[in-house]
Amino acid sequence: MARSRLTPERESELYGAVLDLLREVGYDALTMDAVAARTHSSKATLYRQWGSKPELVARALRANKPADLTQIDTGSLRGDFQEMVAQTDDCQMEKDSALMRGLAHAVHANPELHRALRELLVEPEMTGLDEVLNRAVRRGEVDAGNPALKLVPHMLIGAFIARPLIDDQTVDRAFLSAYVDAVVLPSLGL
Amino acid sequence: MARSRLTPERESELYGAVLDLLREVGYDALTMDAVAARTHSSKATLYRQWGSKPELVARALRANKPADLTQIDTGSLRGDFQEMVAQTDDCQMEKDSALMRGLAHAVHANPELHRALRELLVEPEMTGLDEVLNRAVRRGEVDAGNPALKLVPHMLIGAFIARPLIDDQTVDRAFLSAYVDAVVLPSLGL
Repeated sequence: MARSRLTPERESELYGAVLDLLREVGYDALTMDAVAARTHSSKATLYRQWGSKPELVARALRANKPADLTQIDTGSLRGDFQEMVAQTDDCQMEKDSALMRGLAHAVHANPELHRALRELLVEPEMTGLDEVLNRAVRRGEVDAGNPALKLVPHMLIGAFIARPLIDDQTVDRAFLSAYVDAVVLPSLGL
Repeated sequence: MARSRLTPERESELYGAVLDLLREVGYDALTMDAVAARTHSSKATLYRQWGSKPELVARALRANKPADLTQIDTGSLRGDFQEMVAQTDDCQMEKDSALMRGLAHAVHANPELHRALRELLVEPEMTGLDEVLNRAVRRGEVDAGNPALKLVPHMLIGAFIARPLIDDQTVDRAFLSAYVDAVVLPSLGL
C-alpha cells in the first residue's frame, strides 16, 4: 500500500478523528463514509491507504499508544515497570478504557478486526513486555522458570479492564503503580 | 415486589431465556417484548415481577452463578481457591465470557444496569471472596496488611476478561487453576 502520499501530520489527524468517532458511536456504527466526512477525505483514499475498516481502526489504535516499552531500561524490573506507569497519562488511560469497552464485543464478532488488533497492538506490546522481562531474567532478578512470567500481560490488561467494573473508577497511575508492587512483582518473586 | 407468584422452576426457565437472548442479540437489542414472546408471558407480568429491564437482566445473571463461595471452607486458602475452580464448569465459563463481552459496553452506557449488576452480582461475589480471604488472615496464612488482599477480585475478573484478548482462548479450569497458583497465591505471600 502506498502510504507515502499522506504527511505524518495528516495521518495523525486522521487517526485522531477515527478514535473520536469510535468513542462516540462505537465500532459497529463507525462507517468509512463517516470517517471520510469527518476528515474531509475521499473514501477511495481511505481504502487505498488502509485497505479496510478493521485495518484503519487497528492502525489508529496503534498510533494512539504513547509509551514505547522497548525504550525503557532502568536496570531493575521494578524500575522498568514504574517507568512504564510514569510514562502513561491518566487522561489517556480514561480514553483508552472507553475504547476498550467499545471494542470488546466488536472484536469477538469481527475476526478481521481481532486479527488486525492482535498484529498491530497486542503482539508488539507483548514483544516490548517480553524484552523487559527477559532482561530481568538475564540479570538474575527473576527465575527463568517462574510460571508468572507468561501471565504478566493477563495481570496488567486484566487490571485495566476489571477496575471500572469493581471499583467504578478507571485505572490511573496511582492504582497501576500500587498494582505492580502488590501483585505483579510478588508473583515474579520480587 | 411480589415475586411469590412464580414457581422456582418457572423463574429459572425465564432467566435462562433472558440469558439466551442476551448472548444472541446483546443487551441493547434485548427488549421486554422479546422476553415476553420467548417465555410466553405478558409484559405486565415481567414489569410487575422485576420492575425494569436492568433488574431483570441482573437477576438472570445472578441466578446463573453456579458456585456459592460462602459454602467453601477447606481449611487452607489454596484449597478454597482450587475448590472454587473445581466447582466451575468449562462450558459455563465460555458462556459467561460471551455474556461479559456483550455487557461491557452496555454497563458503561446504562447506569441503572451497572448499579443492578453491582448490587446483585459484584457485591455478593466480593462478600464471598472476602469471607474466604478473612478466614486465611485469621488462620495466619496471609498477613492482614498485605496490599494484594483487596486486589484479588481484580486479578480474578481481569484474568477472565483478558485471556480471550491475549491468547484467543476463553478461560478454562486448567488456566484458572494455574493462574491462582502462579499469581494470586504468591501475591498473598503463599
